Amino acid sequence: MSTTDIKHYMQTVGQKARAASRFVAKTETAAKNRALIAMAEAIRRDEQKLLAANAKDLENAKAKGLDAAMIDRLTLAARGIAGMAEGLQQIAALADPIGEITGLSYRPSGIQVGKMRVPLGVIGIIYEARPNVTADAAGLCLKAGNAAILRGGSEAIHSNQAIAACVREGLTTAGLPETAVQVIETTDRAAVGELIVMRDYVDVIVPRGGKGLIERISNEARVPVIKHLDGVCHVYIDDQADFDKAVTIADNAKTQRYGTCNTMETLLVHVNIAERILPVLGKIYLDKGVELRGDEAAHAMITQIIPATEEDWSTEYLAPILSIRVVDGLDQAIEHINRYGSQHTDAIVTENYTHARRFLREVDSSSVMVNTTTRFADGFEYGLGAEIGISTDKIHARGPVGLEGLTSQKYIVLGDGQIRQ
Amino acid sequence: MSTTDIKHYMQTVGQKARAASRFVAKTETAAKNRALIAMAEAIRRDEQKLLAANAKDLENAKAKGLDAAMIDRLTLAARGIAGMAEGLQQIAALADPIGEITGLSYRPSGIQVGKMRVPLGVIGIIYEARPNVTADAAGLCLKAGNAAILRGGSEAIHSNQAIAACVREGLTTAGLPETAVQVIETTDRAAVGELIVMRDYVDVIVPRGGKGLIERISNEARVPVIKHLDGVCHVYIDDQADFDKAVTIADNAKTQRYGTCNTMETLLVHVNIAERILPVLGKIYLDKGVELRGDEAAHAMITQIIPATEEDWSTEYLAPILSIRVVDGLDQAIEHINRYGSQHTDAIVTENYTHARRFLREVDSSSVMVNTTTRFADGFEYGLGAEIGISTDKIHARGPVGLEGLTSQKYIVLGDGQIRQ
Repeated sequence: MSTTDIKHYMQTVGQKARAASRFVAKTETAAKNRALIAMAEAIRRDEQKLLAANAKDLENAKAKGLDAAMIDRLTLAARGIAGMAEGLQQIAALADPIGEITGLSYRPSGIQVGKMRVPLGVIGIIYEARPNVTADAAGLCLKAGNAAILRGGSEAIHSNQAIAACVREGLTTAGLPETAVQVIETTDRAAVGELIVMRDYVDVIVPRGGKGLIERISNEARVPVIKHLDGVCHVYIDDQADFDKAVTIADNAKTQRYGTCNTMETLLVHVNIAERILPVLGKIYLDKGVELRGDEAAHAMITQIIPATEEDWSTEYLAPILSIRVVDGLDQAIEHINRYGSQHTDAIVTENYTHARRFLREVDSSSVMVNTTTRFADGFEYGLGAEIGISTDKIHARGPVGLEGLTSQKYIVLGDGQIRQ
Repeated sequence: MSTTDIKHYMQTVGQKARAASRFVAKTETAAKNRALIAMAEAIRRDEQKLLAANAKDLENAKAKGLDAAMIDRLTLAARGIAGMAEGLQQIAALADPIGEITGLSYRPSGIQVGKMRVPLGVIGIIYEARPNVTADAAGLCLKAGNAAILRGGSEAIHSNQAIAACVREGLTTAGLPETAVQVIETTDRAAVGELIVMRDYVDVIVPRGGKGLIERISNEARVPVIKHLDGVCHVYIDDQADFDKAVTIADNAKTQRYGTCNTMETLLVHVNIAERILPVLGKIYLDKGVELRGDEAAHAMITQIIPATEEDWSTEYLAPILSIRVVDGLDQAIEHINRYGSQHTDAIVTENYTHARRFLREVDSSSVMVNTTTRFADGFEYGLGAEIGISTDKIHARGPVGLEGLTSQKYIVLGDGQIRQ
């Protein structure tokens, strides 16, 4: 398609989405759930079709010589297909956030004022290889009463279109407009450029993918973006930490999984406990093949620690690498986290009441923890039931974003003829 | 200043604001309140200084030949000065939203998850002539634990600087950094251009002023904007409306004040009640000198109604002008509001339970009302205690924005050594 064709195509997609969003916003819970379950059934039934479509994508990916990690994210095994279906059924089982009325209270004027939870309207999701995001995002947006415009990675185009067919079938089965979830059919990048500036038709953009994608989108977007950048997470071991809790937590935060955004990348240790605990932790990390980088004080306690550069302190390794810094107290720890961190998730290990209270109040991150592992920063672990992503923004949604993050609230005012004097 | 000087100046202001925001975020309630009260005292004491500074601005404004309305907004009478001081004391009396912990509950893993209300960080306020916004905005941002960068209209530069001096005095009296509230000292427009793109130093922009200003800012901003565009508010008189309530509300919504954003601009009347109620309302409006524009059906009932153009339906008159349309039912009324309205405030007058419920659910506006006047859409009337503005956005804050709209929430997780399996 030419640029003008793309523009026209996207405008049409946007208009349809806006119209569908009005319909979905007033759709009752039962119908939304019927659609979600019908989507799941269609996906299970079409397993072979989905595998065939995915095979096409994999073939092209290999021909293009994409790397193994990419191929892995792109691959849709039978297990992945069952997972998509289960995910949709779980979303159907979640409580419907829409229409919830809170805080209705009488004012001196006699009017009663409260808030009602409402959909955002039209949500644009831009994601990379993983095809399962198509079903996942469609389900979450629908349950929250929104219309969705999905733009998956070009490598997954066949898989995404096959999943989209199941999604549309689910929508129509439940009497919902199939335009409630539209999957962009062109792989042209100009489509993304158009999607993120259509303020008349799109209320929010949720990019899911690598830092590059997210930075590009938030730089060019004219529509609000709920975004997640780095996860440079810290664990601070206070001088009044319980030794065993500190070892267990610092180990789990780094080594339970290396590639996740809530994995610890920097360990801060109070100087008064460093000499006792660092050798113990060092052995654990080195035995697991974790490369250690640190400041001089840390190096003095573990010879295998190589010098950390200034850059290390703000690097999200997503790998078996850990930077370690010895600090002289809570203030320095908090200052380090607020300066080098990414406002994602940070934890303190301490038995001191005041230190815990100060850390909770003064660390400016989307999740702040006491005596537990940063790995718990997750929509399911937090009880949101589902997660569209983790926001490191401050506006609107912060931390793990579930159904509620895809909604807004409006004021409702109930009167009996009151007027303003 | 040259453009590079401006850029450098604004970057410095931003850095200072970011540093101050860390301090204010952890400042206890009592200190914030002491600062607010000290500001109020300084403003009362400096009444003469403020009047003198304002006189300079008025002189220049008249020399520049600014219109009467502008001069009026610019004028800072003794009453206005007392009002600023009272406003600050009222803000001191409000509950501190910061640090409030909600929803702490245990998860199956044993961790306890909840949310803590936190400041946004640095708030940029861009406003036009009214100098009292300087004190008002400074007070609200501070109470919500934020640092503020204020950029008032160039016409009010002397008044704003004089008020800023009182604000700084209040801050230092309470031991807070005077950089917690900075008032831009240059009237160069480039300063605004810089302020709205400094994502490293500014967390949100709140523009207060005419539609032109707000549109320009939201088009050019790289920082999230909490904005208020038009107030094209509707009252829909249902066929099952109580006649007297409908007359009282439709009268009050239009004529209690003409220039406010929550004033009704379009009246929708059900065809079955139109013939009875329109002549009564028409007389009220015409007696008060309100110009009436409407569709043919309305004209047939009130000959003084002149034909409304398509444009009228989406126009915010802010004047004694009202457009009137006769609709065939609730669906048409809701469709008209969602199509031509500005998602600000809309009301239905009805005794029908189902019509009221549907209107509340299906009208996509920041305030939706039943049997009362749109004029109640106001932070004070809603019990917010104060108002920085009314948001017609959906993301983050919607409707009247008080202290809470200047805050965010982070997750807090309390554990006893739990780790992820």
